[in-house]
Amino acid sequence: LSLEPANKDKRLMKALRGETLDRPPIWLMRQAGRYLPEYRQTRSKSKDFLDLCYSPELATEVTHQPLRRFDLDAAILFADILLIPDALGQGVVFKEGEGPVLDAISDEAGLGKLNLDGVEKHLAPVFETVANLSASLADNVALIGFAGSPWTVASYMVGGRGSPDQRSVRIWAFREPDVFAKLIDLITEATVVYLRRQIDAGAEVIQLFDSWAAHLPDHEFDRWVIAPTAKIVSALRQSHPDVPVVGFPRGAGAAMMRYAAETGITAISLDSGVPVAWARENLQARLPVQGNLDPFTLVAGGKALEDEATRILRGFGTGPHVFNLGHGIVPETPPEHVARLVDIVTGWKV
Amino acid sequence: LSLEPANKDKRLMKALRGETLDRPPIWLMRQAGRYLPEYRQTRSKSKDFLDLCYSPELATEVTHQPLRRFDLDAAILFADILLIPDALGQGVVFKEGEGPVLDAISDEAGLGKLNLDGVEKHLAPVFETVANLSASLADNVALIGFAGSPWTVASYMVGGRGSPDQRSVRIWAFREPDVFAKLIDLITEATVVYLRRQIDAGAEVIQLFDSWAAHLPDHEFDRWVIAPTAKIVSALRQSHPDVPVVGFPRGAGAAMMRYAAETGITAISLDSGVPVAWARENLQARLPVQGNLDPFTLVAGGKALEDEATRILRGFGTGPHVFNLGHGIVPETPPEHVARLVDIVTGWKV
Repeated sequence: LSLEPANKDKRLMKALRGETLDRPPIWLMRQAGRYLPEYRQTRSKSKDFLDLCYSPELATEVTHQPLRRFDLDAAILFADILLIPDALGQGVVFKEGEGPVLDAISDEAGLGKLNLDGVEKHLAPVFETVANLSASLADNVALIGFAGSPWTVASYMVGGRGSPDQRSVRIWAFREPDVFAKLIDLITEATVVYLRRQIDAGAEVIQLFDSWAAHLPDHEFDRWVIAPTAKIVSALRQSHPDVPVVGFPRGAGAAMMRYAAETGITAISLDSGVPVAWARENLQARLPVQGNLDPFTLVAGGKALEDEATRILRGFGTGPHVFNLGHGIVPETPPEHVARLVDIVTGWKV
Repeated sequence: LSLEPANKDKRLMKALRGETLDRPPIWLMRQAGRYLPEYRQTRSKSKDFLDLCYSPELATEVTHQPLRRFDLDAAILFADILLIPDALGQGVVFKEGEGPVLDAISDEAGLGKLNLDGVEKHLAPVFETVANLSASLADNVALIGFAGSPWTVASYMVGGRGSPDQRSVRIWAFREPDVFAKLIDLITEATVVYLRRQIDAGAEVIQLFDSWAAHLPDHEFDRWVIAPTAKIVSALRQSHPDVPVVGFPRGAGAAMMRYAAETGITAISLDSGVPVAWARENLQARLPVQGNLDPFTLVAGGKALEDEATRILRGFGTGPHVFNLGHGIVPETPPEHVARLVDIVTGWKV
């Protein structure tokens, strides 16, 4: 409680409370990551990617790295959305150059192998990282915790890997919605435990990543995206009423209007394809928006970066806005371009 | 001209003119394809996938196949959006199990290898297929010709293969917009030639597939999706004012409103993630809509298929609507499920 005055004064917290500021706060999805040489060096000290996530000292270090280079308004816990399936007892392996691979689950028997009981203990190193960060971040930097949203996490658990069309999970959800619902419920419960403990350890904001929220028809979007998100938000409100929750239903298009109205989230993060004028009228009028610079402008740099960043600053300038990307920073991004972007945003006056 | 009365009476043509019908016409993206055993048999007679597209007799046969099984209101020319790069002189190879692979172009020198002059001659077998189909289809079946939209075709030409994040093409378009514009212009010109000749040979409707239209920021969506599409539509209107053009900007979300207003297209095809109520209000009120059943409901069948098809029929029932999928039929689709869907739609009464 002694930290509250500082927390309230942070630029990110103000924007998420809907305040009008002289310039928006800025942080960047995947701001700690492979595009930074110091990240690659720290990463090489860990056995594999999961080991990095579970090593409080190393995870704290990589979370800090972008803050040493850039004048960002928030740090985001270094972790991965697949720690939840790992904690539930599903095998998760990160193969070099291939991304995550899981023992795919696609029936009731597969569900039987998952177990909620060990989740909190399994994730203890993550809470230690959060506590480290909470103690070590500069006073003006907000600390963001996060999890994947149940649908997106389920898409990996059922598909066994990332899949742009989420073929396996969609077919299963259509075929056996009541069995699939058990998986969604299990992930939802585990996620509530996980996020509550992140907040207890010092996370000041929560972001829910729904990276594979695109393509779902209305009814499935309501049942598998909106309903579990609403359940998580409501549970967090009960235990931690003052912690803002940012939802990121990537690729959801016009369905974002329903998502914003029905999940109870504090703010909505926009992918790069969301029209700024449309979002201003249909979303920002109701809640703070975050986004939505195309991460490939950060690779390109130069005029494209200046033009796109300025367009977004102008477009969202008058309402509550958190400057961010429309998706994570990609590995081939030159760090100088990130520095340039941060200069543009921090030098901006509405 | 002697065919005009028949053309005007076809259910698809009526819906695309905005008429209210007792039930919508139905056709299905990729209705001719790998899910049909007879397709696989015909396909095995050709050297490779491109050879199938360039063999008028075989391409005519596979176009007819789904019409023999199902009471569909349209046939769509069997071809591929990558015939344009192939005709422009870029090497295109379809590798078994891998999809298309092209010699990627990413600079001015690469553009120099492309040539418009041979396009019409190279594509002559496609026009022969269209003529065959025009002569052989039943009187109530409309014939749809198609091409890829320039942005999507460019994403393959620059990336060398399909890519959900269109990394290469987006980076190039941000870095060197004026050089990239030459590629878009070249594809646009080739596409106009290609589609005009398809119409001359008997195509009654044109569909433009923009499968990778998602994620683009406003300015890039305007320049690389809307502007070239508008140019194609306008050129076709000049030469063939009565031929409807259906646009399919897959994943474009709320940007579809601008697309519908500014491209001049006759009708808009919706991916499965487009909310039906939103589309009714924001799109169908202005132009006919096509879609948007999730292709994975066709894999699942049963209750999911009944429920989803009925929801879409109810949702779009009162306005001009062409029943279709939100994306192409996938290979694991049981043909019986397609038969069931066609029964549901043809048995529907508004």
